[in-house]
Amino acid sequence: MSGTYTVVKPEPLRRTWVAVFQALGLPREDADLLVDVHIDSELRGEESHGVHLLIVHAEKIKAGAIRPKPKVTVLMDRRAVALFDAHHSVGQVVAARAMRLAVSKARSFGTGIVGIRNAHSYTSAKYYPLMAAAEGMIGITYTNSRPMMPPHGGASSIVGNNPMSIAAPAGKEPPFVLDMACATAKEKIWQAADEGRPIPDSWALGRDGRPTTDPKEALASGVLLPFGGYKAFGMAVAHEVLTGILFGGDIFTGDATGFRPYETLMRVSQYFQAINIEWFMPLEEFRTRMDVMIRAIKGSKLRPGVERVYLPGERGFLEMELRRHRGIPIHERAFAEMQKLARELNVAPVEV
Amino acid sequence: MSGTYTVVKPEPLRRTWVAVFQALGLPREDADLLVDVHIDSELRGEESHGVHLLIVHAEKIKAGAIRPKPKVTVLMDRRAVALFDAHHSVGQVVAARAMRLAVSKARSFGTGIVGIRNAHSYTSAKYYPLMAAAEGMIGITYTNSRPMMPPHGGASSIVGNNPMSIAAPAGKEPPFVLDMACATAKEKIWQAADEGRPIPDSWALGRDGRPTTDPKEALASGVLLPFGGYKAFGMAVAHEVLTGILFGGDIFTGDATGFRPYETLMRVSQYFQAINIEWFMPLEEFRTRMDVMIRAIKGSKLRPGVERVYLPGERGFLEMELRRHRGIPIHERAFAEMQKLARELNVAPVEV
Repeated sequence: MSGTYTVVKPEPLRRTWVAVFQALGLPREDADLLVDVHIDSELRGEESHGVHLLIVHAEKIKAGAIRPKPKVTVLMDRRAVALFDAHHSVGQVVAARAMRLAVSKARSFGTGIVGIRNAHSYTSAKYYPLMAAAEGMIGITYTNSRPMMPPHGGASSIVGNNPMSIAAPAGKEPPFVLDMACATAKEKIWQAADEGRPIPDSWALGRDGRPTTDPKEALASGVLLPFGGYKAFGMAVAHEVLTGILFGGDIFTGDATGFRPYETLMRVSQYFQAINIEWFMPLEEFRTRMDVMIRAIKGSKLRPGVERVYLPGERGFLEMELRRHRGIPIHERAFAEMQKLARELNVAPVEV
Repeated sequence: MSGTYTVVKPEPLRRTWVAVFQALGLPREDADLLVDVHIDSELRGEESHGVHLLIVHAEKIKAGAIRPKPKVTVLMDRRAVALFDAHHSVGQVVAARAMRLAVSKARSFGTGIVGIRNAHSYTSAKYYPLMAAAEGMIGITYTNSRPMMPPHGGASSIVGNNPMSIAAPAGKEPPFVLDMACATAKEKIWQAADEGRPIPDSWALGRDGRPTTDPKEALASGVLLPFGGYKAFGMAVAHEVLTGILFGGDIFTGDATGFRPYETLMRVSQYFQAINIEWFMPLEEFRTRMDVMIRAIKGSKLRPGVERVYLPGERGFLEMELRRHRGIPIHERAFAEMQKLARELNVAPVEV
């Protein structure tokens, strides 16, 4: 982190932002959820998915790219599966509704899948599988995104970085949660550009089709590289099949030309699945088995210089414990924009 | 490929191997399936998953590690989900039965999941999702495997390479099929060892905990590296949760000490899912959408020196067209062992 940071407690941050989104036309309950997704990310130490994106959401609502009042059409709802059209309403709100329905279907059928098309980004993939984990289920999500990666051997952006997340409850250990994109998160490149930091040369190509360490060059080309080469390219295509293709949404395959203005509709598709653990074994037994696995992994012999092994998602839970008490550091630029936005909407700015 | 190869037509190869497995006690139908999985791999150019592993399967049946007669207990079968105990019978046979049931559940409920515990390896993950794709569905599988990868920052093998595969039907294009392990396939290391070739230093650690290019050293340590670092380690854990943990099988987390003898029971767990495309949109529309996506990917601008872009699985379908007519090249060592095995069991060896 470079630049000046102001440390803010979660509750004042939440209060101001909920009031901001109510002023922008969201129902109270929807504003609560939208804000919670982003504060959850900040608490886990994911600055790129926090206040920075709340500001983007506010700008997009003003620009008409996100519909503040909820509108969802249930296109199909049949036994273990369902399909929604989100009509570009608040992505997090529709996503949470879809995961709740997937959990309810899993209670009745053992598993449930709910798809969404014409969605706005739900910001943090892990939030929704963790809702399922809190209900004693395994939760899974996939989403597509606009094209930003080339196929293996290609030089233009044809597929999205198409994140996925899966979560499962444990016992005494925190839940397992994997949340990953098939490329480096573009938010991390924005952030590096904001802060004037170079990026590793494995993250993106420049406009000349060669690897670059300049985040501005990466943003100009819009061509990010898949992690691990052809395997993560293949995963991105698989996630496109399970979202845009299957749910009748936009198919994101076309040459990308840099990042798009706020008024552009996102039109992404998202997949939510829940699996009812209790139909396979008592939930307590599953929790114990998770703890056994987690402790075995943490008991691994270490490489020289490594102090401990972390499970996926574990650092986020540790950081959350700290930040709940100590507060969340907000970058000076985001802090200033946030307070300006609140004043514009006649909302009390965040108390420090 | 180094060493001498004998080119064999698929049908004589199939005939001899089916007779070999019938002589070892398999019912005809089961022998057909077991052999088909491996010849399918050879036709796709995957020598590491072909005749080489048929020989291993025959040795394991002789050693008592695979039960030749089918035995499956249905532990749970409830609406969209089911759970089998395979009692170490032929992995491919139980896996195909599980995917057929998942497809049948998807016809009734929109999606279906079938789990197996106490399974033997099914060899080729892609075979089973492609069964679903042939029925007009999306198919997904995960499997665990014995520990062979360290956690991120670890030096000992704690998680398996835990492969996954997903397939979906297309229209005029071949089906999409992604089939990947979270580490480099150990069969490729065996093969390099057999042929005396070095391996890339990103594939495995040696017994000293450092990266090695010596396949024998990699086999001695049994410590393979995840592709793409911590992300593929996280995926391997996720696949363990969806198999060994959820299905009540062995949890594969423990320090591995090299490769195990043939008489060892594998005790893996496997996940099979089918998604009924027609409940989301007409199958023909889905096929057209797949073709649109595939052609957009293949139309990508290319990097200098690259002649074309391949979809995941595409090279296998192209190779299959060639090998069906031209035949399958079998390495001299595998060829000799195969013919010896046939003669031992009074089966007519493969005609060349």
